[in-house]
Amino acid sequence: MTRWINAAGAALLILLCSVTHADEGMWTFHGFPLDKANSTLKTKLNQAWLDRIRLATVRLSNCTGSFVSGDGLILTNHHCVESCLADLSSKEKSLIGDGFLARGRAQEKECQTQLAAVLTEMEEVTAKVAAATAGKSDQAANDARKAELTRLESACEAQSKLKCQAVTLYEGGQYWLYKYKRYTDIRMVFAPEESIASFGGDPDNFQFPRWSLDMGVLRAYENNKPAKTPVFLKINFAGPAAGDPVLVSGHPGTTDRLLTVAELKAQRNYEIPNWLLRNSELRGRLIRFAEESPDNARIAADLLNSLENSIKVRRKQQDALLDDALFARKSAEEAALRAQVAANPELRTAIGDPWTEIEKAQAIKAGLYQPYLQIETGAGFQGRLMTYARVLVRGATERTKPNNERFREYTDAALPRIEQQLGAAVPVYPELEKLRIEFGLERMREWLGPDHPIVRQLLVKESPTELANRLVSGSKLADPAARLALWQGGEAAIAASNDPLIVLAREIEPKARELRKEFEDKVEAPVDLAAEKIARARFASLGTSVYPDATFTLRLNWGTVGAWVENGKPIDPFTQLSGLFARATGAAPFRIPDSWLAVRDKLDMNTLFNLATNSDIVGGNSGSPLISAKGEVVGLLFDGNIHSISGSYWFDTEKNRAVAVHPAIMREALTKVYGADTLLKELTAK
Amino acid sequence: MTRWINAAGAALLILLCSVTHADEGMWTFHGFPLDKANSTLKTKLNQAWLDRIRLATVRLSNCTGSFVSGDGLILTNHHCVESCLADLSSKEKSLIGDGFLARGRAQEKECQTQLAAVLTEMEEVTAKVAAATAGKSDQAANDARKAELTRLESACEAQSKLKCQAVTLYEGGQYWLYKYKRYTDIRMVFAPEESIASFGGDPDNFQFPRWSLDMGVLRAYENNKPAKTPVFLKINFAGPAAGDPVLVSGHPGTTDRLLTVAELKAQRNYEIPNWLLRNSELRGRLIRFAEESPDNARIAADLLNSLENSIKVRRKQQDALLDDALFARKSAEEAALRAQVAANPELRTAIGDPWTEIEKAQAIKAGLYQPYLQIETGAGFQGRLMTYARVLVRGATERTKPNNERFREYTDAALPRIEQQLGAAVPVYPELEKLRIEFGLERMREWLGPDHPIVRQLLVKESPTELANRLVSGSKLADPAARLALWQGGEAAIAASNDPLIVLAREIEPKARELRKEFEDKVEAPVDLAAEKIARARFASLGTSVYPDATFTLRLNWGTVGAWVENGKPIDPFTQLSGLFARATGAAPFRIPDSWLAVRDKLDMNTLFNLATNSDIVGGNSGSPLISAKGEVVGLLFDGNIHSISGSYWFDTEKNRAVAVHPAIMREALTKVYGADTLLKELTAK
Repeated sequence: MTRWINAAGAALLILLCSVTHADEGMWTFHGFPLDKANSTLKTKLNQAWLDRIRLATVRLSNCTGSFVSGDGLILTNHHCVESCLADLSSKEKSLIGDGFLARGRAQEKECQTQLAAVLTEMEEVTAKVAAATAGKSDQAANDARKAELTRLESACEAQSKLKCQAVTLYEGGQYWLYKYKRYTDIRMVFAPEESIASFGGDPDNFQFPRWSLDMGVLRAYENNKPAKTPVFLKINFAGPAAGDPVLVSGHPGTTDRLLTVAELKAQRNYEIPNWLLRNSELRGRLIRFAEESPDNARIAADLLNSLENSIKVRRKQQDALLDDALFARKSAEEAALRAQVAANPELRTAIGDPWTEIEKAQAIKAGLYQPYLQIETGAGFQGRLMTYARVLVRGATERTKPNNERFREYTDAALPRIEQQLGAAVPVYPELEKLRIEFGLERMREWLGPDHPIVRQLLVKESPTELANRLVSGSKLADPAARLALWQGGEAAIAASNDPLIVLAREIEPKARELRKEFEDKVEAPVDLAAEKIARARFASLGTSVYPDATFTLRLNWGTVGAWVENGKPIDPFTQLSGLFARATGAAPFRIPDSWLAVRDKLDMNTLFNLATNSDIVGGNSGSPLISAKGEVVGLLFDGNIHSISGSYWFDTEKNRAVAVHPAIMREALTKVYGADTLLKELTAK
Repeated sequence: MTRWINAAGAALLILLCSVTHADEGMWTFHGFPLDKANSTLKTKLNQAWLDRIRLATVRLSNCTGSFVSGDGLILTNHHCVESCLADLSSKEKSLIGDGFLARGRAQEKECQTQLAAVLTEMEEVTAKVAAATAGKSDQAANDARKAELTRLESACEAQSKLKCQAVTLYEGGQYWLYKYKRYTDIRMVFAPEESIASFGGDPDNFQFPRWSLDMGVLRAYENNKPAKTPVFLKINFAGPAAGDPVLVSGHPGTTDRLLTVAELKAQRNYEIPNWLLRNSELRGRLIRFAEESPDNARIAADLLNSLENSIKVRRKQQDALLDDALFARKSAEEAALRAQVAANPELRTAIGDPWTEIEKAQAIKAGLYQPYLQIETGAGFQGRLMTYARVLVRGATERTKPNNERFREYTDAALPRIEQQLGAAVPVYPELEKLRIEFGLERMREWLGPDHPIVRQLLVKESPTELANRLVSGSKLADPAARLALWQGGEAAIAASNDPLIVLAREIEPKARELRKEFEDKVEAPVDLAAEKIARARFASLGTSVYPDATFTLRLNWGTVGAWVENGKPIDPFTQLSGLFARATGAAPFRIPDSWLAVRDKLDMNTLFNLATNSDIVGGNSGSPLISAKGEVVGLLFDGNIHSISGSYWFDTEKNRAVAVHPAIMREALTKVYGADTLLKELTAK
């Protein structure tokens, strides 16, 4: 699954992109090269087409979806609705395992922490940000930039009813305000059983050929009624033919295609290896936990799926970064741009040597990384309850400050989302919380050492296990009302609380803030400034004829459906239902659910199941519609092949492929397996 | 703990070493530079001194020990006797946790899988091996070399009562027959509780300052009586003074100080990362398993300790290999040697370009690595029962062949050791076996993919969990008598067996043999030949004035006890007992055992506890005596500091330190905590 996962220390990792290849490119809607697309694809796309696609594309919490009916129906992936299914489950009953179908709108169930947003307007604000930071030192400019972005968002929201988000493109080469219509009442309509949604499980994840019905259907509500969404995409259940052009509209999460060599080395040498070490161990603990009982298996499913997906991504990213050819290529590209700057006296005077500045900041980062990671970003303090506690403690302090001076994640614009999450009645499983807290504390002690002040402070009298048990057993934070009371009570309530998790969060807060300040001033500030300078050097040679790195904002790209050759063998871009039965073994994760086995004889075994395209996508694109030139949905993107993971750093034209659910299998399943007639009727209405 | 761990794909990783620094050097006893040592240390060591030290040094299964009485008493580390303690434990009673003291010889308990060996003779056989391989192709030479080594060992054992082992030094620059007096009846005499033996546990492992009583005492028996060992080392309980020279005699396991750059990249890019990923997950599963019940905690302790130690080692090896300075240095050294060869027409004609040959073989290895690792070397087939099954199946076939044509681990010389292990009545815990088999199968499927023929063969109808349960529940191999019956029954018994583990081992054997053959012919053979050629180039420029890489054979090195500076702070090379109590927290792994707390008031808090030297040691040196110029034991080596781990690849004079138990704390503990008067009397006898 192409879930979007934040890169470790993600704050720094945004750079712009270079010359594009064949079907490479994650284009903004305001910078989409219509002429180039039309000449490549032999299509006649125009601005109206672009506007329609944009307004029918939906941003979810960490995925993409599209409106597929006039009544707010959103088509996305099963793995994008999995956390909602988990929130609607209990220890005894798993909607992830069992699937869900609302037979009628009254049965549609609210996803309490899901949001949907449609990008309705875009405004460039580069000049305003430049004015706010002009003439300031690194650190002062970093603070001023954040304050200005907060101010712009606030002003935008005050004057419109839209949700405004400041977006940094081309590493500070451009700043934009993206304005969204936001839906906060999102309900679950349909999800198949996990065993067919992610048939093949982790072993088949990021593979093709493939047989996964990775679909989920949500509905946006307004005023307790289905939202009216007149701009939507019709599903063409016939799907595309081989050779057809297809476009993908969605929200690719993060790419690092033009980080400097020094930044890539930081990822390669410790950020990714460290992440993998920690999370492979957590995987082991969760697997064993899940084996202890069926209840535990249900409890751990969502977290484990997500973790295994991320492990596969990181593993292949690491492989890519350990490929000497990549480093040679990156080094050569960097050297070429530096030579251009050196040969241009005006530019050289203006920007100096930002690559060396970044390299110096990386050396500082290496020393700060572990304490910052463990204490501030929370590797040492894991789990849902712990996160509540830290948000409550920090939020209480931040809200006493003027809006512009707060951490960006606690501005007035961000508060409603925080309140939604604190107030959501989602299940909290004490045993899982204990496991996660204990794990975080043990590894914090391992990586910071038993003599680090925070470790000594917390773990002198208790072992990690004992502390985790005491924190979880003694805390009231599993109760949404208790959380909201502390939130509303502000600093006084936090200071007065003797909830053991609040006490702990209070105790580590000064050190966490100190580490964040140090990291922002010594690493983030110089890197951001240097990266802006590199962007200027790039603009000087390439202009904006290139696309910016992915930032989980709306992008459009194009590709085609077609066969390719791998390891000397031709790969057909379509799979059929018959292949599912051939691959099934009777044992998870290759077990076909009973609902399908029961109707096996009625199914058309030639039904197309999954398909592959050469679209340039990464995590965050999950749930994106695959769109024909006529603007119809001809597939539901849910994954890439194994080579697509190196797309974080480059686009491999030969091997990188995107994987989608074919509309034909959606119809076959909805009709014959699930009897979802009402839903199907809405999807096929004229 | 400096346990010796085999490098992944260890077969290839032996090379010779370059110019030595300060106190660097793992010298053979036949190549020890006496003059250099005496001039550096201002001592008067001579050949008799060397012989005495050699004959008092003991090789254990994966550690070192030394005779410390005339009645066969062997001093070594607690972590070296831990597997014996585990073998003597049960689900309900853990000798690891509780410690052990034999009050009189009748109470000494046999370690059924321990061996002890003393190196009594050494004979160079380089010319014989050269004659056997002369004029042969890579593959034929590889086979002929192995056959000749087996023949030499057999002939040696036939004419003496000694155990003969062929030893490859300087990567085939020299071959030796090492002849050992072997003791097969080894008994447990004393071990303290794990909580004091490895006080600080994994967090403090590879750290200094340190407070670990990592000692264990065994006794060698012959004919059911304590062995007579007239050559032994007396313990000097006063220990060394700061600045004193100390020598370390022992069996460093593996160093890779002069692998080629291509070989180091293979370690860096996939061997170590892959190992870490797999074993971090196993660590997580074992930690959770151990938390499920006190029984499980006891069952998993030995495996988990060993695993965590190995993870720390691999992690720091990986850090070393990801250090750009290392690669620059290695590349420069390699380039210099290649330039010397290029400038010497005679040498150039004789050896060609072995570096490129190794690089080509590494490219082939990359493709073979995963299937070879998973199927032949057993990453996919883990656990004690599985290992029994595979040894029984392979051994039955191998024993039908002439001795010279067998795999080297099944020659006549090796069979008694195999029989000892098969017949040992050591505990087998079904739950732990299931965990390990399931884990191996799941990861084999992950890394080879669900479509690999072996994966399809084994996991079509059953999940890894189901298969593991069936294998363990249905197997009789936990019973030593059943194992010996199958061993003695040979091929017919194996063919007739329906034990599910034997059936599985039979099924995978053809593929495993095929992978081994391919690996040996395409990787091992060309690499060995090329490495021999590089050795010739090195001899041409350096002679044998350098030491060979470590091969778990006897070595001697020197150093001194002294303070050093780290992170700007001076480090005292001695710790005192008072520091133990200051560091204790009451919670494991920083909890002092009750036996010590009970006598706290009687203890002399100034007693010296651990000490650090700048000796050049690696895993396998564990249990080595720290020896004064007078030939007395003045410390018991048990670990290195964190910087010592990079000693796999280089010796860092500034920071690399070895860590030992001070004799004073041994006496204090034996006297006041354990009341081990009889033992102490034997240790202090005139």
